[in-house]
Amino acid sequence: MGSSGSSGIVTLLSDFGAKDAYVGVMKGVILGLWPEARIVDLTHEIAPQNIREARFQLEGALPYFPAGTIHVNVVDPGVGSSRRILCARTRDRWLLAPDNGLLTGLLGQGAEVRAVTNKAWFLAGAISRTFHGRDIFAPVAARLGRGEPFESVGAVVSDPQLLELEVARRCADGALVGRIEHIDTFGNLITNVRTSDLGGAVPRSIDFLGHALPGLSESYATVGQGQPLAIIDSFDHLEIAVRGGSAAAHFNAVVGDEVRVRFSI
Amino acid sequence: MGSSGSSGIVTLLSDFGAKDAYVGVMKGVILGLWPEARIVDLTHEIAPQNIREARFQLEGALPYFPAGTIHVNVVDPGVGSSRRILCARTRDRWLLAPDNGLLTGLLGQGAEVRAVTNKAWFLAGAISRTFHGRDIFAPVAARLGRGEPFESVGAVVSDPQLLELEVARRCADGALVGRIEHIDTFGNLITNVRTSDLGGAVPRSIDFLGHALPGLSESYATVGQGQPLAIIDSFDHLEIAVRGGSAAAHFNAVVGDEVRVRFSI
Amino acid sequence: MGSSGSSGIVTLLSDFGAKDAYVGVMKGVILGLWPEARIVDLTHEIAPQNIREARFQLEGALPYFPAGTIHVNVVDPGVGSSRRILCARTRDRWLLAPDNGLLTGLLGQGAEVRAVTNKAWFLAGAISRTFHGRDIFAPVAARLGRGEPFESVGAVVSDPQLLELEVARRCADGALVGRIEHIDTFGNLITNVRTSDLGGAVPRSIDFLGHALPGLSESYATVGQGQPLAIIDSFDHLEIAVRGGSAAAHFNAVVGDEVRVRFSI
Repeated sequence: MGSSGSSGIVTLLSDFGAKDAYVGVMKGVILGLWPEARIVDLTHEIAPQNIREARFQLEGALPYFPAGTIHVNVVDPGVGSSRRILCARTRDRWLLAPDNGLLTGLLGQGAEVRAVTNKAWFLAGAISRTFHGRDIFAPVAARLGRGEPFESVGAVVSDPQLLELEVARRCADGALVGRIEHIDTFGNLITNVRTSDLGGAVPRSIDFLGHALPGLSESYATVGQGQPLAIIDSFDHLEIAVRGGSAAAHFNAVVGDEVRVRFSI
Repeated sequence: MGSSGSSGIVTLLSDFGAKDAYVGVMKGVILGLWPEARIVDLTHEIAPQNIREARFQLEGALPYFPAGTIHVNVVDPGVGSSRRILCARTRDRWLLAPDNGLLTGLLGQGAEVRAVTNKAWFLAGAISRTFHGRDIFAPVAARLGRGEPFESVGAVVSDPQLLELEVARRCADGALVGRIEHIDTFGNLITNVRTSDLGGAVPRSIDFLGHALPGLSESYATVGQGQPLAIIDSFDHLEIAVRGGSAAAHFNAVVGDEVRVRFSI
Repeated sequence: MGSSGSSGIVTLLSDFGAKDAYVGVMKGVILGLWPEARIVDLTHEIAPQNIREARFQLEGALPYFPAGTIHVNVVDPGVGSSRRILCARTRDRWLLAPDNGLLTGLLGQGAEVRAVTNKAWFLAGAISRTFHGRDIFAPVAARLGRGEPFESVGAVVSDPQLLELEVARRCADGALVGRIEHIDTFGNLITNVRTSDLGGAVPRSIDFLGHALPGLSESYATVGQGQPLAIIDSFDHLEIAVRGGSAAAHFNAVVGDEVRVRFSI
């Protein structure tokens, strides 16, 4: 499809919403430079300037795109300041994001990270102070996609900004303690407890906001309508859900709420 | 474009919303298997788990896609349970949906319906309990689109689940009684009274929530701003609207409200 | 890509929202007639029937699409009435819109404007009274894109409807007075004061709803979190913003609020 290992696919993720033509304009710039691009929206409904939510969504999506995909991510509270823009080549994909921690945990071993500084790759004309998605991210993605060399983007960077990610931890009593990391559109509560954190052990109960859920369910349909359950979600996180309803509303839960997984002794 | 009669087009319909990358991930899976696919979103704003609304939206959209289109529909309260996934070949298109009634009225004469059971067509790796859109629907659509034989999807099914659809009925006094079936983004009230139900007769008045609208208008512009009217909508349903406003707000109407069409004797 | 100077790209802008399959249906019609089209959504979240907002969004987007793009715009309170549909060929692009002022200021010198009247170009079958986006705009865009001659669309029109656009004006005291023209998804307040209105002069203060902002900032990051600022936005408008927040909420501002730019003497 594309050149130099490109899959021909560009994904876009931002906090630009659907009200304005911002995302459409980025697509115009990409297609103007690279008419064959196939552009896929991941989401543009990241809460304004919520870098952690952007990171979470991108992390989940990455494994499902073919090798050679270019992932463009613009949640950028520092736009127009001296913050850098990063372009990473990691195994089989490219990642573009502001240097604000959005790529934390996504670079992996052997990634090559560069600062995007080559003005010849930017949109022709003056670069705005407020919309680098259009003026820098879009044209750089298009040039990578059509086969221009990654090395031309700018110099190698060794110190990308990283967020501290809270991971589930073992307590002295053997319980595993995590937190709600994301609430999805259905009101499902996605925790930072991963399948790998369970280490093959079978939870006996999941404690959450004063309720005790009896271990892991095999599907939403194993409990009655309106009843809560815990389940391993499709991205290998422990999820708390309500069959046919919203767990967020049921528990009045928010991101950051603690979840405690207990095991049989 | 595609092979074996495929138009090269896949449509997606779901209740996944825009907040999460769920739809984007399905597109990644489709394009990974079938890079030439052109993917069109019908809507992802179906109310959570509202199978009837999904059916309604799909019914309206089907006639406007070229022969050979693959329509993927994931409103799936039973995901992960033993509910089947159906793939239908009906005249000139393919339809994929959970076996929950979503395809009621859309199969038509001579459709061949199969249960999707061929694990070789699923996404490689473990199949999740909560996201068959990604793990089953997307790869099956891609394989059909690139020309793999429909017969390979699974065995023929003769008993798909069907919803009971309420149709407009004639009363003893000659009136035609229907209901609000859908409220669209403008607040237009779409009824289940079809042009064919009118049988060529000209309505004298349309009674709705205690108001009497004087027959059918030829366009929104035939009444004053803010005034209600009845009209045949663009999908051949009787619609109650308010010029330049929301009929749902004007009448405080909800899905299921009764509408009564009276004719001259 | 396309023929006859087409870029192969169609953009869509409407007030159709995301709830219904209206936009998807338009895409089905376009792809049925012109399978190679690449379709880009500008926005479908224009407030219902808000022609000025549609015009504003289209104006900002146009410069970022390659020559030969077809821009389809359906905000159409007069659908089904005798209002005309316009198709304009302006330098290097085509514009389609109802004749309601949506194209005000976008036609430029030497544009050729035609009324869309050639029924042979419309969707086959009866034309609805309520959805010309599907029945007329979509098929006309597809035919233009695949190379059918612009002249066939209908006769030349010399009197398109125009909106009166309020522009910033100079006061006797030298101040420049404008208004909030648009509030974007972040709550940024976009004014009708353009860089060109400043004429190279440097603002000393920007007065807005009883507050005085100290001139123009170079980026959002030059003030503290939650602090207001004025800046030139990425489309060359004066914008009032709040770092990391919503200026609309901060100032309780609405479209039409006055802004006054003062200069040093």
